[in-house]
Amino acid sequence: ELQKKLELLHPADVAYILEALPLEQRLDVWELVKADRDGEILLEVSDAVRQTLIADMDSDELLAAAERLDTDELADLAPDLPKDVLQDLLDSLDAQNRARLQSALSYSDDAVGSIMDFDIVTIREDITLEVALRYMRRLGGLPDHTDKLFVVDRDDVLHGVLPLKRLVVSDLDAKVADVMSEDAVIFHPEDIADDAAKAFERYDLVTAPVVDESGKLVGRVTVDAVMDLIREEAESDMLSMAGLREEEDFFASVWKSVQNRWAWLAINLITALIASRVIGLFEGSIEKIVALAALMPIVAGVGGNSGNQTTTMIVRGLALGQVASHNMKSLITKELGVALLNGLLWGGVIGAVAYALYGSYPLGLVMMSAMTLNLLLAALMGVVIPLMMNKIGRDPAVGSSVLITAMTDSGGFFIFLGLATIFLI
Amino acid sequence: ELQKKLELLHPADVAYILEALPLEQRLDVWELVKADRDGEILLEVSDAVRQTLIADMDSDELLAAAERLDTDELADLAPDLPKDVLQDLLDSLDAQNRARLQSALSYSDDAVGSIMDFDIVTIREDITLEVALRYMRRLGGLPDHTDKLFVVDRDDVLHGVLPLKRLVVSDLDAKVADVMSEDAVIFHPEDIADDAAKAFERYDLVTAPVVDESGKLVGRVTVDAVMDLIREEAESDMLSMAGLREEEDFFASVWKSVQNRWAWLAINLITALIASRVIGLFEGSIEKIVALAALMPIVAGVGGNSGNQTTTMIVRGLALGQVASHNMKSLITKELGVALLNGLLWGGVIGAVAYALYGSYPLGLVMMSAMTLNLLLAALMGVVIPLMMNKIGRDPAVGSSVLITAMTDSGGFFIFLGLATIFLI
Ligand SMILES: [Mg+2]
Ligand SMILES: [Mg+2]
Ligand SMILES: [Mg+2]
Ligand SMILES: [Mg+2]
Ligand SMILES: [Mg+2]
Ligand SMILES: [Mg+2]
Ligand SMILES: [Mg+2]
Ligand SMILES: [Mg+2]
Ligand SMILES: [Mg+2]
Ligand SMILES: [Mg+2]
Ligand SMILES: [Mg+2]
Ligand SMILES: [Mg+2]
Ligand SMILES: [Mg+2]
Repeated sequence: ELQKKLELLHPADVAYILEALPLEQRLDVWELVKADRDGEILLEVSDAVRQTLIADMDSDELLAAAERLDTDELADLAPDLPKDVLQDLLDSLDAQNRARLQSALSYSDDAVGSIMDFDIVTIREDITLEVALRYMRRLGGLPDHTDKLFVVDRDDVLHGVLPLKRLVVSDLDAKVADVMSEDAVIFHPEDIADDAAKAFERYDLVTAPVVDESGKLVGRVTVDAVMDLIREEAESDMLSMAGLREEEDFFASVWKSVQNRWAWLAINLITALIASRVIGLFEGSIEKIVALAALMPIVAGVGGNSGNQTTTMIVRGLALGQVASHNMKSLITKELGVALLNGLLWGGVIGAVAYALYGSYPLGLVMMSAMTLNLLLAALMGVVIPLMMNKIGRDPAVGSSVLITAMTDSGGFFIFLGLATIFLI
Repeated sequence: ELQKKLELLHPADVAYILEALPLEQRLDVWELVKADRDGEILLEVSDAVRQTLIADMDSDELLAAAERLDTDELADLAPDLPKDVLQDLLDSLDAQNRARLQSALSYSDDAVGSIMDFDIVTIREDITLEVALRYMRRLGGLPDHTDKLFVVDRDDVLHGVLPLKRLVVSDLDAKVADVMSEDAVIFHPEDIADDAAKAFERYDLVTAPVVDESGKLVGRVTVDAVMDLIREEAESDMLSMAGLREEEDFFASVWKSVQNRWAWLAINLITALIASRVIGLFEGSIEKIVALAALMPIVAGVGGNSGNQTTTMIVRGLALGQVASHNMKSLITKELGVALLNGLLWGGVIGAVAYALYGSYPLGLVMMSAMTLNLLLAALMGVVIPLMMNKIGRDPAVGSSVLITAMTDSGGFFIFLGLATIFLI
């Protein structure tokens, strides 16, 4: 009965169910799924869950599942397949599809070539719409998402696109050449996928042709692939800001999760040790005024929080393409202004609290100055760190939160204890 | 010359330029934009930037810009318009559009009603495809994104949808009723927009009909609106985790930015003060062993970091609908496992370092135990806080990072100094 229900579900829904199940039950359900749907479901699940499912299948099952897929879908699955299955698969393809799969696999993950598919319907420009419509009816069906036909010459060079919308409203005697649009948005397989996604969002595209350097049509990008990309990008930014390497299967083993998270925790441990050594420099001062030990985490903590606000803004601005090195100066000026205002405001409040708690007027002043200086440091680092990472070609989101906190912790302790040592001891 | 270049640009590109310019230059460019494009550009810019542009326009300009827009677009703009302009606008609309605008404005921001548009093309089910095509040609054009026609009866009740794809490949003598699809994904205006977005992603939709409780067609949702929603949601999650209230205009005044960020900074200040008071409880112990002051931030900091990793995972799982109260227990078990392993591992390392630095074996043991306990606390809070917030109907992303850090700071200091006081003093 469960089996029957599964059969009625869309593959994406089955994928959703598999993802929400603990490993054992997940594999039980996976057994119940008809073999001829394995391939399309493997495409829909997350990478982490896909690995658990593939690990449960033998070579024959995998080959059978893969053989039902389109070439572009195979390319998505290929990196997770065992080498021998992949080789068998390549052998089973005809020349055109083998070439396509090999080229799709050759593009990097963030290139348009890795998200394009080959479900393209082409027509010639010298025919009338009536002939075009007759040709469509002979085809008997069009690929998903087809909102336009691609107009090519006999060498497959793209001359324009004919939106279905125009095909159905225009005069049947008109020539394709007269109705087609020649200024469609076009991509190359080497283009950055993220830029293509931005173009889809900006120009509200449903599909767009992909051509090679000689103008030959080689594939198309569809909005559903773009949506998946946008979602993945946003998630990976969020995960990597927190220092997680990749998405986790929620029901992964403890050991797998530890592996996913240990790298940044180790970095965090080192930065925390450095901050601890900074405090160690001032142990003499703390011995004399033990209140310093109680107050120093406030300076460090608020600085870290404020720095993270700034970094989050900048990471987002970089992703939107609105922030770049050339406006670094004006961004720094603004963030320093915000920090100064916050420092005087909240530093004043916390300075007053320190005075109230410990009855020392100079201690309050040191607290306020240290807060202000650490917020300024946080603002500076909050802008500079992601911009620098971006400039040297690294993802500005990755671990930026850990790095900012490192600066504001060590810096905050140093500033506060340093000022205290100078003015209070 | 700049003016001419602007005229050739897509409104979304003009919007992008305006967003990347500091306020003064932004308004200069805005002056150059032809008045008849003002409306569509206002729709494309971010909310923060839109406010700066609208502040620069007088009522007549705003009215003229708004009058060129579709009703659904007006609804997007309306919240930012001055009251008198909005009233003039309502007066200028015909009855159908006024009713549509008022109903669109009545839906909450996160309902399907607020992202739907009214660009619907309807046909009857008893006509042949040939007649349908003739009707299309008489229309002379179809709205953007039209991938399907909506099949309704004379009461506007939706009976099915006819994809353009099928219209162009099917036999012209067939009846609409025989070719249409009756199990299309359908939404209601009150549905949660985020759920609709998930359906678009899952079923790879381009457009979907929206019907009222009696089955009457009232509008449609298009994939471009959904993409904008997904982008905005992901951004707002990222911003709110860092304690930013909303997206900022990168060139906003310092004062505006302070307003956007102060609330969570104030909360952070209070939590830091609490942590400071926790340390204050143990000032006697710190006076005796000043090394405690240097080591305590390590326990707190690593706990905070680890807790944030957990929370980020859970927030994401909640957004994907894969995490809910019912699997809270298994998630907590897993996270506690990860924390225990990390605690013994990294706590052991840091305990050894403490021993090496201060030559005290018991101090190393206290350090290791405190790290482990604080990581366990971080794991527990990292799961429970977002799940609780979600359960009481609050956005689990908002400020979760600040809250977790609060728990791990105060908790870490208490655990470490407490253990030290018991075993070392
Ligand atoms: Mg199976
Ligand atoms: Mg395909
Ligand atoms: Mg692919
Ligand atoms: Mg758009
Ligand atoms: Mg648009
Ligand atoms: Mg990224
Ligand atoms: Mg203007
Ligand atoms: Mg519209
Ligand atoms: Mg709207
Ligand atoms: Mg999809
Ligand atoms: Mg799909
Ligand atoms: Mg949200
Ligand atoms: Mg901290």
